[in-house]
Amino acid sequence: MTKKEITIYDIAEALSISPATVSRGLKNHPGIGKDTKKRIADTARKMGYQQNMFATNLRRKNTNTIGVIIPRLESYFHSTVISGIEKVANAHGYNLIISQSQESYKKEVNSVSTMYNSRIDGLMISLANETKTTDHFEELLKKQVPLIFFDRVIEHPDCTSIVIDNKKAGYDATIHLLEQGCKRIVHIDGNVNRNVYADRLEGYKQALQQHNIEFDQSLVLNIELTDQATAVATQKILTMKQLPDGIFTANDISAVSCIRELKRAGVRVPEDIAVVGFNNEPIATVIEPNLTTINYPGKEMGEIAATTLINKLKKQPSGNLNTIVLRHNLIIRDSSLRKRKH
Amino acid sequence: MTKKEITIYDIAEALSISPATVSRGLKNHPGIGKDTKKRIADTARKMGYQQNMFATNLRRKNTNTIGVIIPRLESYFHSTVISGIEKVANAHGYNLIISQSQESYKKEVNSVSTMYNSRIDGLMISLANETKTTDHFEELLKKQVPLIFFDRVIEHPDCTSIVIDNKKAGYDATIHLLEQGCKRIVHIDGNVNRNVYADRLEGYKQALQQHNIEFDQSLVLNIELTDQATAVATQKILTMKQLPDGIFTANDISAVSCIRELKRAGVRVPEDIAVVGFNNEPIATVIEPNLTTINYPGKEMGEIAATTLINKLKKQPSGNLNTIVLRHNLIIRDSSLRKRKH
Repeated sequence: MTKKEITIYDIAEALSISPATVSRGLKNHPGIGKDTKKRIADTARKMGYQQNMFATNLRRKNTNTIGVIIPRLESYFHSTVISGIEKVANAHGYNLIISQSQESYKKEVNSVSTMYNSRIDGLMISLANETKTTDHFEELLKKQVPLIFFDRVIEHPDCTSIVIDNKKAGYDATIHLLEQGCKRIVHIDGNVNRNVYADRLEGYKQALQQHNIEFDQSLVLNIELTDQATAVATQKILTMKQLPDGIFTANDISAVSCIRELKRAGVRVPEDIAVVGFNNEPIATVIEPNLTTINYPGKEMGEIAATTLINKLKKQPSGNLNTIVLRHNLIIRDSSLRKRKH
Repeated sequence: MTKKEITIYDIAEALSISPATVSRGLKNHPGIGKDTKKRIADTARKMGYQQNMFATNLRRKNTNTIGVIIPRLESYFHSTVISGIEKVANAHGYNLIISQSQESYKKEVNSVSTMYNSRIDGLMISLANETKTTDHFEELLKKQVPLIFFDRVIEHPDCTSIVIDNKKAGYDATIHLLEQGCKRIVHIDGNVNRNVYADRLEGYKQALQQHNIEFDQSLVLNIELTDQATAVATQKILTMKQLPDGIFTANDISAVSCIRELKRAGVRVPEDIAVVGFNNEPIATVIEPNLTTINYPGKEMGEIAATTLINKLKKQPSGNLNTIVLRHNLIIRDSSLRKRKH
């Protein structure tokens, strides 16, 4: 029989506080007061606590495996993020395992549990549309498995998020359409439960306001942003009493579907309706006219997410980073260029 | 502050025994005496202990996790296969973890080992270009973890392969070009180390022979089949003393790149050069002219691979299947249609 181990639960009981507080106190978490931290540290020392004992007993120390959970594998954007992650992970001797949530909270919970059971050293995740809480990550975090959010993120005191400024990007796309002379701009957006789509909508509104155009909710279509859903949405747009003269869609798949349907209906792009997409996927230079879009540096995002995670795994000082914001930029092509056209 | 959870440490403390003994007792470990087990069970019940699902899963025999290894995540074709696998796996309560070999044998070996360490119940794989042997699967197979090959396969007495008839598909594509009046057909192909590319080349040769056209090795370009590599190959084609009048490329990304470069060089598609691709990706209907291509039923392939694997896991009689061949078909669009054009 082994000597009884002291755990955070014993310390919590001795101090009549929660194990979560003990865990955070021992990690020098900023949310825990200085006095509480001292009491926790003193008690831990007195009781002979050694960190990580439970984790060490239950888990092998390092598997050199990092988990990645994304909403959909067939997303070109997410595959570029993964290629960035893979590049950095390989250079540091880590292997990746990947799982998809298919935008479902339930599937995301399952994926996290599968990753946990695969004994990953760390996890990177872009959240499903349905996800609203972080409870399903607590078990991992309790075991000191670091977690990084990218692209679709949520606030968590222990986690770093890697994003672009989606509000500014939505603003840039809309301002560009306004500067091309558009006055009635439709915004095709995703599920505003997710930061990325809510922020792009905010940027759209801000740009309209700046040009003294009143926001019209009937010009915002929240859809799944797939080829098919956009084709349906475009048919709906074509039945509007007054047609828009610009469309800003929140991804390129959707923009391409939109242009195709407009052309089929005999609407000229960009003369009748100018179109701007989001992501800068390869398809943007295949569709005719070539698509104006926001360049989203997916590979760079993956590289930075992986570097941040690996620094945490190697206990390298990286500061207590909360959010890292990458640069985006608007790439202007023919689908929106009206001013030079005639 | 959250309600305190009862852990094995609390039970251990109450009984003055080690947490390891509590853990083993709760799992009915043979090394723990009957009386001790009873004391542990009684105390756990009294204290309101709930077994930790994660910890329980760690020691369960089945992990309900299936592994999938593909060459590249950014392949649309492979993402459709995975969506088919995911559909069937979810319906049977299995979770997927996915890894990519990036066409490297060494990375494939690492991925197999990561999957093994994640204690997957079964594995499905489409092989890297570099892979020539099956030694790296033997450890899994020894542990009776079933293995299914799909798309890019290799002979193994214990494994089922799911394929299409690539030779017939290459033949169909080439015969179509010949029937459109093409007499000098370039074939842009991948690494012939892989069955899929070797077989498509065979089909191309067979079709030429049937039309009494002598095979000319200088008209076969073996490249990486990426956008960039095809752009370079197309520039090379454009310097040929005698231009071809048809091009059959072994994937759609390559066909689209090829059409773009031809158009930029002022070559008319299909009038001067007719082009046929392979896979029927969404981009085939975005490029203008729309691409004639082989429809490769990726989602169906994934569904059948997963069904075959799960039948093996459930020890259901499925016969000793060696190879399952799915149906392909040629989809004729404007990029090759010369006969109706003028």
